[in-house]
Amino acid sequence: MEANTCKQDVLQKKKNAILVDGVILNGPITDSKAGEKFVEEACKIIMEEIIQKADDVTEKVCEWRAPETLKKILDLEMRDTGESHQKLLQLCQDVIQYSVKTNHPRFFNQLYAGIDYYSLVARFITEALNPSVYTYEVSPVFLLVEEAVIKKMIEFIGWEDGDGIFNPGGSVSNMYAMNLARYKFCPEIKEKGLSGLPRLVLFASEECHYSMKKAASFLGIGTENVYFVKTDERGKMIPEELEKQVQRARKEGSAPFLVCATAGTTVLGAFDPLDKIADICEKHDLWLHVDASWGGSALISRKHRKLLHGIQRADSVAWNPHKMLLAGIQCCALLVKDNSGLLKKCYSAKAAYLFQQDKFYDVSYDTGDKSIQCSRRPDAFKFWLMWKALGTTGLEERVNRALALARYLVEEIKKREGFQLLLEPEYANVCFWYVPPSLRKMEDGPEFWQKLHQVAPVVKERMMKKGSMMLGYQPNQGKVNFFRQVVISPQFGMSLRVETWLIFTLTRLEIVNLNEELLKASN
Amino acid sequence: MEANTCKQDVLQKKKNAILVDGVILNGPITDSKAGEKFVEEACKIIMEEIIQKADDVTEKVCEWRAPETLKKILDLEMRDTGESHQKLLQLCQDVIQYSVKTNHPRFFNQLYAGIDYYSLVARFITEALNPSVYTYEVSPVFLLVEEAVIKKMIEFIGWEDGDGIFNPGGSVSNMYAMNLARYKFCPEIKEKGLSGLPRLVLFASEECHYSMKKAASFLGIGTENVYFVKTDERGKMIPEELEKQVQRARKEGSAPFLVCATAGTTVLGAFDPLDKIADICEKHDLWLHVDASWGGSALISRKHRKLLHGIQRADSVAWNPHKMLLAGIQCCALLVKDNSGLLKKCYSAKAAYLFQQDKFYDVSYDTGDKSIQCSRRPDAFKFWLMWKALGTTGLEERVNRALALARYLVEEIKKREGFQLLLEPEYANVCFWYVPPSLRKMEDGPEFWQKLHQVAPVVKERMMKKGSMMLGYQPNQGKVNFFRQVVISPQFGMSLRVETWLIFTLTRLEIVNLNEELLKASN
Repeated sequence: MEANTCKQDVLQKKKNAILVDGVILNGPITDSKAGEKFVEEACKIIMEEIIQKADDVTEKVCEWRAPETLKKILDLEMRDTGESHQKLLQLCQDVIQYSVKTNHPRFFNQLYAGIDYYSLVARFITEALNPSVYTYEVSPVFLLVEEAVIKKMIEFIGWEDGDGIFNPGGSVSNMYAMNLARYKFCPEIKEKGLSGLPRLVLFASEECHYSMKKAASFLGIGTENVYFVKTDERGKMIPEELEKQVQRARKEGSAPFLVCATAGTTVLGAFDPLDKIADICEKHDLWLHVDASWGGSALISRKHRKLLHGIQRADSVAWNPHKMLLAGIQCCALLVKDNSGLLKKCYSAKAAYLFQQDKFYDVSYDTGDKSIQCSRRPDAFKFWLMWKALGTTGLEERVNRALALARYLVEEIKKREGFQLLLEPEYANVCFWYVPPSLRKMEDGPEFWQKLHQVAPVVKERMMKKGSMMLGYQPNQGKVNFFRQVVISPQFGMSLRVETWLIFTLTRLEIVNLNEELLKASN
Repeated sequence: MEANTCKQDVLQKKKNAILVDGVILNGPITDSKAGEKFVEEACKIIMEEIIQKADDVTEKVCEWRAPETLKKILDLEMRDTGESHQKLLQLCQDVIQYSVKTNHPRFFNQLYAGIDYYSLVARFITEALNPSVYTYEVSPVFLLVEEAVIKKMIEFIGWEDGDGIFNPGGSVSNMYAMNLARYKFCPEIKEKGLSGLPRLVLFASEECHYSMKKAASFLGIGTENVYFVKTDERGKMIPEELEKQVQRARKEGSAPFLVCATAGTTVLGAFDPLDKIADICEKHDLWLHVDASWGGSALISRKHRKLLHGIQRADSVAWNPHKMLLAGIQCCALLVKDNSGLLKKCYSAKAAYLFQQDKFYDVSYDTGDKSIQCSRRPDAFKFWLMWKALGTTGLEERVNRALALARYLVEEIKKREGFQLLLEPEYANVCFWYVPPSLRKMEDGPEFWQKLHQVAPVVKERMMKKGSMMLGYQPNQGKVNFFRQVVISPQFGMSLRVETWLIFTLTRLEIVNLNEELLKASN
């Protein structure tokens, strides 16, 4: 609470109060000491309840409550008068208690997990400094850091030079790339728009991220003008099918301008064959964008970077260090091979109030006009501090370990009755079905698959209500619901004492309890 | 540094090590205790160097270094091996030292300033929890909080019902609105795109934010199809001119679909006459979007909400609580009057791996498919905790005080020789020229204005190199460079002892030192 009310009483007794429109202007209106004390007390809670528990497998990964129940538990209402510090600290406790612990060793629900202490410190620093990264005058350090990080990421892609920008998410990076490719294809679109132009067409695999459709819709291209290219049984784009689609688009009289390849698909973790796709792009003069939001981190590993063989031929790359590398949400770069200022030409609006040209320093450092955002967060910084702390070898270790854990998990799945691999993974995504005892003797056929489809949601519900584990599941390309497990947390450990068979014992615990009746009843 | 290297030695001696692809899988690879200690030590630095200094006017607002110099000071390079904790803590110190203190009482450079302790705590919590706000299963608390905050903001707009989403910036909110209006105008665009359609046209004032142009370009509409409407001498859109522009667009055979009014322009702080603009929108069946990124906070003040008279007639509103209300960058809502699910229909891509329909809870809480983003930050939460702490009256006080300070500053400017107001402000933006002694006797004419244009950059350079104050300047609509001062920090105080004439004494200090020779030499 601002301490103004009582201060006013004191001040009004003084002769020198400056009163304008009923507001006393003397003195700051916050009680800094009380505010600082509140921050200190809250930090203690954060340390004890979140950070210190991040490696404790005996804690729950979530404390599930249904929406209507949780609304009743939490005091969500915002009122006219503020609450006491004591009440606020209790609120913070409640928020933490009922939030999912994404850095719990058993959180396998998304493509991010775990905690990195260095990235976390960087994020605390930037939250406290509250910068906005558009001009050098306001964000000198963070702009230089972003430049350095982009330069380093470009090195790992294998380009000699390039440009880039950090964005709020891989989806936004993909949008940037799509717009950039379009600008390169026809710069006039920036001023004139798409009206009256031939239909622009782009290509992506059936397994690409859904942001391609979102981007095509948002950019006025239209979702129907994303031509989806067939994938092979491992989820990789088939180059011959891409060639066919490009031919088809040309025949229709539309204007192909872009191929979006994926390096590490969301569900299967598949890598499109970049080299062959690049050949087709060259032949047809198409921009090659690689959505390596998930798979890009493999570039750090000397052992695994071959998964992205050919990436140096891409025109642009999206890469999210907040996933496998643990830089914290969000940390997403769009990297561009062009070094002639294309990004700036495409995006600049030259706002005179922000990007003044008569500043006293080199305004080429005012890189904010490359962005679709005005205020922008210093997301490169947390990656940078983490990189300084771990070194490239520490980052590499994270990648190598995640892929070794996947390999291990695959071998264990093969040994176990009732577990069935969907496919041999290329990357960290281990996709499998759990077939409960009641279905094991059943004949393969529509009924079997229909029943199997219902298993994963039930298992997941039980795991969440117990708070024992969180694991993603989904149907995909005609395949019924299966689990996708990704183990990237550095806090995840397999010690014989506690967690040797973590992955399976836990899954099994849920599954043994799985009421076969329930499955039957739901039919 | 990950503690793997030494652990490996130990583990390899054990019999039970699980080795896959050369990676030992036993045990977590982070040393949690060391990590936690690092976080604690860094938090101490953050508390002492950033938070406790936020109300200290004797500190510098910035420690200016030119880009090339700062590069040499900071050890930016990312190496193969990590650094020691001691070195990392020093790096953190350096980063803080050379970063601009945006929460310093004398930071007036942007439309945000100051520090709010409650919002800061909320941000620390979310950084530590590292959530992504797309599904209820992963972000139960933060999705409910977002819903509650949006509902409350909608109340303040004066709608009976509505929808909304928090976005990474006001620019992005404006884009959302533009796309939403387009979807409402012609839903087919989502699938078909703009190709072959008549030219879409939208209207915004000459003083609107530059994101309108960025949005039109990004969305494939084209910057030329933003028709800029003339403003009056205070920077407010002239309704009659809007009517003319709409007529012009109709005559040209283009398709007008949207008017973007501004409530609180960036430079002058002008409010477009929303009620009259709404009449025109109704007459021509145009979507009315109000960019209240800056001015929206006035809605909280019973005294000042009349500035936005008519806002309840808007179809959508962008409002950034990170500016005058101090919620921390970024905290930006797009609010939509429609309650029929338009936002979701327009944006959804129905990704089967994330928005499964066979979940065990009410999936209407999985609001992530309303967004163009996939991973998304819980930006509503920091606003919510701050609101809980201050109450509506505490937020109202911030707005009332900022406007009272502006009023005070205006009256002081009028009293002082050499200071010239650009215009009577409606809001918190106080725009003025400083005319140095050498120009005071000069005749009004091109030479005078040309010389005056050069004053602000020189004053600013001196202030920054001294670290005494940061203040924005810009030319605008044919007017030469002038200062824009906005005083919103609750840490800013005017005590007779230390700071009574802060605003002027400081500005004056710089200006008295202003070398007239330098001005002459630069001609």
